[in-house]
Amino acid sequence: MTVIAVVGAGYMGTALTFPASDNNHEVRLVGTHLDEEIIRNCLENGFHPKLKRPLPLNVTPFFHNQIAEAVPDAEIVVLGVNSRGVHWAAEQLAPYLRPGQITLMVTKGLEEDKTGALRVLPDIFAADLPPSIRDQIYYAAIGGPSIAGELAARRHTSVVFTSRTPKILPYLQAAFSTPYYHIWTSTDLIGVEVCVALKNPYALAVGLAAGLVERENPPDIAGAKQHNFAAAIFAQGLAETAQLVQVMGGGMETVFSLPGAGDLYVTTQGGRNSRMGRLLGMGMRYADAVEEMPNETVEGVEATIAIVPSVERMIANGQLPDNAMPLLRRLYKILTQNEPVDFDFNRFFGQLSFNPPV
Amino acid sequence: MTVIAVVGAGYMGTALTFPASDNNHEVRLVGTHLDEEIIRNCLENGFHPKLKRPLPLNVTPFFHNQIAEAVPDAEIVVLGVNSRGVHWAAEQLAPYLRPGQITLMVTKGLEEDKTGALRVLPDIFAADLPPSIRDQIYYAAIGGPSIAGELAARRHTSVVFTSRTPKILPYLQAAFSTPYYHIWTSTDLIGVEVCVALKNPYALAVGLAAGLVERENPPDIAGAKQHNFAAAIFAQGLAETAQLVQVMGGGMETVFSLPGAGDLYVTTQGGRNSRMGRLLGMGMRYADAVEEMPNETVEGVEATIAIVPSVERMIANGQLPDNAMPLLRRLYKILTQNEPVDFDFNRFFGQLSFNPPV
Repeated sequence: MTVIAVVGAGYMGTALTFPASDNNHEVRLVGTHLDEEIIRNCLENGFHPKLKRPLPLNVTPFFHNQIAEAVPDAEIVVLGVNSRGVHWAAEQLAPYLRPGQITLMVTKGLEEDKTGALRVLPDIFAADLPPSIRDQIYYAAIGGPSIAGELAARRHTSVVFTSRTPKILPYLQAAFSTPYYHIWTSTDLIGVEVCVALKNPYALAVGLAAGLVERENPPDIAGAKQHNFAAAIFAQGLAETAQLVQVMGGGMETVFSLPGAGDLYVTTQGGRNSRMGRLLGMGMRYADAVEEMPNETVEGVEATIAIVPSVERMIANGQLPDNAMPLLRRLYKILTQNEPVDFDFNRFFGQLSFNPPV
Repeated sequence: MTVIAVVGAGYMGTALTFPASDNNHEVRLVGTHLDEEIIRNCLENGFHPKLKRPLPLNVTPFFHNQIAEAVPDAEIVVLGVNSRGVHWAAEQLAPYLRPGQITLMVTKGLEEDKTGALRVLPDIFAADLPPSIRDQIYYAAIGGPSIAGELAARRHTSVVFTSRTPKILPYLQAAFSTPYYHIWTSTDLIGVEVCVALKNPYALAVGLAAGLVERENPPDIAGAKQHNFAAAIFAQGLAETAQLVQVMGGGMETVFSLPGAGDLYVTTQGGRNSRMGRLLGMGMRYADAVEEMPNETVEGVEATIAIVPSVERMIANGQLPDNAMPLLRRLYKILTQNEPVDFDFNRFFGQLSFNPPV
């Protein structure tokens, strides 16, 4: 039996308590200051209002002011906060982390460190910790196609657990593996985390095609829709992911398997990023589309706004070529400058050995 | 102006006459012996019954017994026959091909040559031609996400034209490029053609998940479906594609861009392979599912049955490892031996550096 503390009681953090509980671990679900209502619900009636299902057996809910009780003796600390919560989590957790603990991140994103270099979130989290503990704990993360509600429904879910420290991976794998939760392990932390961060913006971009069909290209006399358009966006999204993975030092097999292709696919099959994409594709301005989705975090929007300025700097200093990532950069303008939803397809795939259209 | 003969009046061959006609080429649409009714319709009322739309302006229909009029002075001969028609096409065309002509293949598939080696279709076609003409003509092919009806509707479509002979590529690109038909060129003929051949089986496999949800896993109390399952199949399909591309000598960037990821994505978004997958996932035996889709060629079925015996031989002779392509091989048993639709997920991704589930 392992003691597992999950910090952040949102969709994905809570979903992970299901396989952990099924494996008879002692699981503690620690809400953030944004999760007070959720934790109250969990304590009062054992029901998680966001996941819309009962909390599993071996899970004890904690309010964020109980973090001192929940974390110090946990062997695994799952970080399930949102992407803006990583600094908060480092600050809150620092006093309670102990040498030998494993942190397992499900938060998605990329961020610049103090030198201006784009970094994966486990590294951003580590940099925020005091030097006294920073090198005394282990860092791991999860990537791959995993809709939280399906994992919580104990439906087949296949993911990759990653860490630069190979020796902790079999332990983590054993702690969470169940007949429905299939876990591969990989030391390509960079590749997995870049894929995880980029799938939301590119799923949003694929969703634009659905909206465009409704706005200006309804099915024609013979029923033609706009799947070729969406598929080109999907392919360019994966190719841009491959480009950033490569520049940051990750591996291609991470891109063409679960963390890249698989997670991008599942994210295009519904959810908030697709809905936002559809609204924008229908011609709604971003400011109005946000009003249509009140109180919902659209991770693809946040990631685009967080990442593109770094990409522009990487282009300016020669780390990326001038023609890098035109889709993500276009999406940034659509989201921040009210530019219309159109794409110069011919600028896509510029980093490949293909010769572009003329 | 170029003279372009399209041999095979099915969906994709005919769809290519749209950009060709829009570029003011002289386009000849030559039916096979299976296309008599289609060509008669085209001649009588200028309407293509399969694509369900009028034939474009500069297209002249020909019956197959007029091949001698249509082909000899064409600069480009598009091969739009079905995968079983490649040998027929070589036999029919051999007397009329002239040195310097370009053949451009849209037919999908892989086949063993006389030595037992798995080959891409342009090579199978070339091997069937008499030596007198075989080395006198050029071979090219098309890959990428391209639903024929959308191309014929002049909706944005992005593809890769490929040939081992770089000098013909700009010519082909110019002949077919339009504001809606975006053409990249690549010399990775092997990579493109392996991707093209494998997308149908893997799209069918992704479709199985939709059927399975209907049969045994309807959305639960909280609405959970089975997208994680489908996404794992998608990712494994692309990873198996990467494995075969690599063994046959193609390149990874073909896999993670338009020909691999893009075409697999579009093929999962509907069509006959997805429908067949859904029927099988619902528990129908293959023999019964075929009855539900009369007179329809399901390319994913034909490709699986054509390719898997070669894959087994490649495993037997050490060209592929024992754990290669478990998804395609499982699909073969589902289709040919009435085996149930289930998968041992833990056998997936065996060729990657990931450590598998235990």
